[in-house]
Amino acid sequence: MTLSDPLSAAATRFGPALDRELREAVPDESRGAIYRLVRYHLGWATQNGVVARAEPGKRLRPYLLLLACESAGGRADGGLPAAAAVELLHNFSLIHDDIQDRSPQRRHRATVWSIWGEAQAINAGDVLHAIASRSFLRCAERGVSLGATHRALALFHESCYRLVEGQYLDLTFESRVDVSPAEYLAMVDGKTGALIAACVEIGAVLAGRDGAAWRAVGRAFGRAFQIVDDVLGVWGDPAVLGKSVDDDIRSAKKSLPVLLARESLSATDRTCLDTLYGADRRSDDDVETIRRMLDQSGARERALDHARAAAMEGEAALAVIQERGAAVAPLTSLLRVLVERHR
Amino acid sequence: MTLSDPLSAAATRFGPALDRELREAVPDESRGAIYRLVRYHLGWATQNGVVARAEPGKRLRPYLLLLACESAGGRADGGLPAAAAVELLHNFSLIHDDIQDRSPQRRHRATVWSIWGEAQAINAGDVLHAIASRSFLRCAERGVSLGATHRALALFHESCYRLVEGQYLDLTFESRVDVSPAEYLAMVDGKTGALIAACVEIGAVLAGRDGAAWRAVGRAFGRAFQIVDDVLGVWGDPAVLGKSVDDDIRSAKKSLPVLLARESLSATDRTCLDTLYGADRRSDDDVETIRRMLDQSGARERALDHARAAAMEGEAALAVIQERGAAVAPLTSLLRVLVERHR
Repeated sequence: MTLSDPLSAAATRFGPALDRELREAVPDESRGAIYRLVRYHLGWATQNGVVARAEPGKRLRPYLLLLACESAGGRADGGLPAAAAVELLHNFSLIHDDIQDRSPQRRHRATVWSIWGEAQAINAGDVLHAIASRSFLRCAERGVSLGATHRALALFHESCYRLVEGQYLDLTFESRVDVSPAEYLAMVDGKTGALIAACVEIGAVLAGRDGAAWRAVGRAFGRAFQIVDDVLGVWGDPAVLGKSVDDDIRSAKKSLPVLLARESLSATDRTCLDTLYGADRRSDDDVETIRRMLDQSGARERALDHARAAAMEGEAALAVIQERGAAVAPLTSLLRVLVERHR
Repeated sequence: MTLSDPLSAAATRFGPALDRELREAVPDESRGAIYRLVRYHLGWATQNGVVARAEPGKRLRPYLLLLACESAGGRADGGLPAAAAVELLHNFSLIHDDIQDRSPQRRHRATVWSIWGEAQAINAGDVLHAIASRSFLRCAERGVSLGATHRALALFHESCYRLVEGQYLDLTFESRVDVSPAEYLAMVDGKTGALIAACVEIGAVLAGRDGAAWRAVGRAFGRAFQIVDDVLGVWGDPAVLGKSVDDDIRSAKKSLPVLLARESLSATDRTCLDTLYGADRRSDDDVETIRRMLDQSGARERALDHARAAAMEGEAALAVIQERGAAVAPLTSLLRVLVERHR
């Protein structure tokens, strides 16, 4: 069994229904020209508005939500509008991140801002944020009680605060050379961990459970997920990732490998690294120099150690919910994919 | 009685409670540095984070919501979290608009993006959007039923779609010379009308009524409000408005006066106007030339005629809700301020 099998299994079970839910949530272009940008970003249309079926992304968040819901004894049907909502919220944040990071590519395609400009890409993200919230409300039409929908919605919006708080911190890190690994992990817990933790908790709440124990599961695996993301951002396979692995270095992203490398490099090398990261821009040669220093520092393995530690915390949290009667097997398999993935 | 008296009356009645609600909704800086940007924008802090009490804006939207709620027989207390939400949603859209329009000033102060840069201003708007949604949920803790809260929330998120759809259209108009007044009015119904209409409808829904008849009231006055805004954007008093009245002309904003002037100018003058608006930028002399053409075209009065027509529609819609037992007097007074204002 390959490690991405649980993701394929979730896609087979939930993919078609999730697709329907997403398409019900997102208006088409007849309602307004802005929806071309949204549909392009989601892979449903070319930039000229022609129907397309581009790679939709991994959809980890909605699948986690649905499996968490089932693990807590709920029906996935009722969770579908929330699953669509977390996927759309994630995509809103990607559209805005791409503007902020000036990323030219996402999932092998040009980013929204690079085609339509920043101002309209801001609008595309904003409308997707509103669509996500509207979608979530439909849980109450699918057999989830108003009370459970309401409690889950609060978690949804709060996870969005944390996501944006984390994104804010991440950007402030770009102009600092002295970010500590601890500060980094706090940022990651917001930027990526919060929404992943919320997905797992929301699933349980929609099933009528108190979700706190589920949140602990999501938070640990969310942290592991982001660390692996950082490692892939430097050492991943660009053909598999759909973007250049030079982007993170070129944009002076203070990812965990960089922060760990700083700790273990000689004073001379650290000064060299700091100077390169502190400069306004990095040439191709600079990127190669940085990559060589990161390779030699052992930062890759040390970063993966952090990911494994977070994953172990997650396994312990899974044991807690299992004791409370949760059917954790499919959820556990998918969570492990977060740590052992290649894209 | 001056025309802004109803606004002062609403501020006296609801201002302190709205302030408390807003301050409960917005986290402080101890939670994250991003909240300094939000609190600065709201006028609660200087850019260095020192407590301030800057002009908070007119707060028309929350007061309309609360008066609409009372007009429909509801208690304003229950509507306060929703009132805070519409004010915060409005402010999220202002932060993003200012980035898109490159506006240097808002309410006599430097805009968020001009101090912290575009990337972080995107984050500040995004977090405010999430805070607004979270705030709305608290209606259910203030005596509004879960069902009414849920229905009103759907209206809230849908008004946000329309607001962003309108903003998208508005930006596309900047690069076109041939926008018709009809296209303009459709844009305005989204960009400004939708949230104002939603405020009036949400108030009624929170009071347990079917809000459609209230929405018609809000839509008509919302349109009137935006037209007056456009007129003030060219002919307002900068000292009262808190921003330059050259901004709209300089940024080639296709506001209603410009579109109406195009219709009545001689072919030669229209070509001149189109050339000036089609250029990449407009000099001080260009701004003066355009202003003179607008003055002479009679566009100011014709735009105000459109505003008055919309206001008359609004009065008719008010008569409908009055027939259904609504206590419309305070709501009517405030709505009239939207049309007869100077800032």
